[in-house]
Amino acid sequence: MYPVITISREFGSGGHSIGKQVAKKLGVPFLDGEIVNQTAVESGYCKELIEEQGETATSANRWFDISAASTMYFQSPQDEIFLAQRKVILEAAKKGPCVIVGRCSDYILRRADIPCINVLIHSDMENRKVRILERYGDIKDVDVEKRIKKKDKQRRTYYRYYTDQHWGDYSNYDLSLDSGTLGEDVCVDMICELAERKSK
Amino acid sequence: MYPVITISREFGSGGHSIGKQVAKKLGVPFLDGEIVNQTAVESGYCKELIEEQGETATSANRWFDISAASTMYFQSPQDEIFLAQRKVILEAAKKGPCVIVGRCSDYILRRADIPCINVLIHSDMENRKVRILERYGDIKDVDVEKRIKKKDKQRRTYYRYYTDQHWGDYSNYDLSLDSGTLGEDVCVDMICELAERKSK
Repeated sequence: MYPVITISREFGSGGHSIGKQVAKKLGVPFLDGEIVNQTAVESGYCKELIEEQGETATSANRWFDISAASTMYFQSPQDEIFLAQRKVILEAAKKGPCVIVGRCSDYILRRADIPCINVLIHSDMENRKVRILERYGDIKDVDVEKRIKKKDKQRRTYYRYYTDQHWGDYSNYDLSLDSGTLGEDVCVDMICELAERKSK
Repeated sequence: MYPVITISREFGSGGHSIGKQVAKKLGVPFLDGEIVNQTAVESGYCKELIEEQGETATSANRWFDISAASTMYFQSPQDEIFLAQRKVILEAAKKGPCVIVGRCSDYILRRADIPCINVLIHSDMENRKVRILERYGDIKDVDVEKRIKKKDKQRRTYYRYYTDQHWGDYSNYDLSLDSGTLGEDVCVDMICELAERKSK
């Protein structure tokens, strides 16, 4: 049986697409939209809010945190979404092999001692800009870089807030791949081959 | 033709052994002692000093640096060794495929636009302690951890001093592998398979 595979990724590095192809090649579920749906059921919040808040931290976290510390135990909507999402991720991983993208899934599964392969996909700014331009089309060069940096910062802050660890620390991953120098296909093959090896 | 492979590694992660096996499997030179010999010829310093100074920075660097800034252009023995070693690495890489361990070789080859695969081997403290204990035998547990931390610090400082970059930043590597969770054999196979792919 294949292990669960988590994919952490820099924005624009193609991690989402690589994860999707890995899942297809191994014939296991690719968990992205399904996590949002299940988290909506679990938490009672609407899908749009979960999509927006499910992986990006805002200054609201800090506000709620201070509030909680100074008054009483209090969970922000984002905390509730994180906990519901965490439950959905753990339940999915316990069901069997799958590919999960982002959402602190590497940290969540490691802490729960669930056997998994934690992968990080990264790429340099130039390669990421090309990918984002292909994806979103009519957007100015300067705006692409801004968008990439903002999105990375949001994910880093979210990861830091909920795991108290530094996002992108290589020691959190079994395998880190540069999708820019290696190419998407090579990344897919290497992850699948590692999954094959681990399944024996 | 295989690309040149550079292996950066945490102390005790097995990176040296992995590099040696990769070179053997691909049938290409493994450059370690040979770099020391050639650097000795190039720089005029003795092998023992090169082995000691060729990858670890000491406070002497800073002293010489201040001295140079305040008086005139001045190279410390370690600077001279670095430059001679850099020349040896570049000449070796230009000759053809090989495996080079440490010595800022990833940075040196990238800056010279020489096609290469840059690999980072890492592992958690527990796995590294076991490996070091196997290698050096009769050494106290507390001393092993101290030795590992000291060696890592020296390598980081050396890398930082000569490249002005942060050692272990994942974006400097095409491939980063956890030898503790994956195992040495899997690391060797993955690097060799990537070299095969890149050679086509």
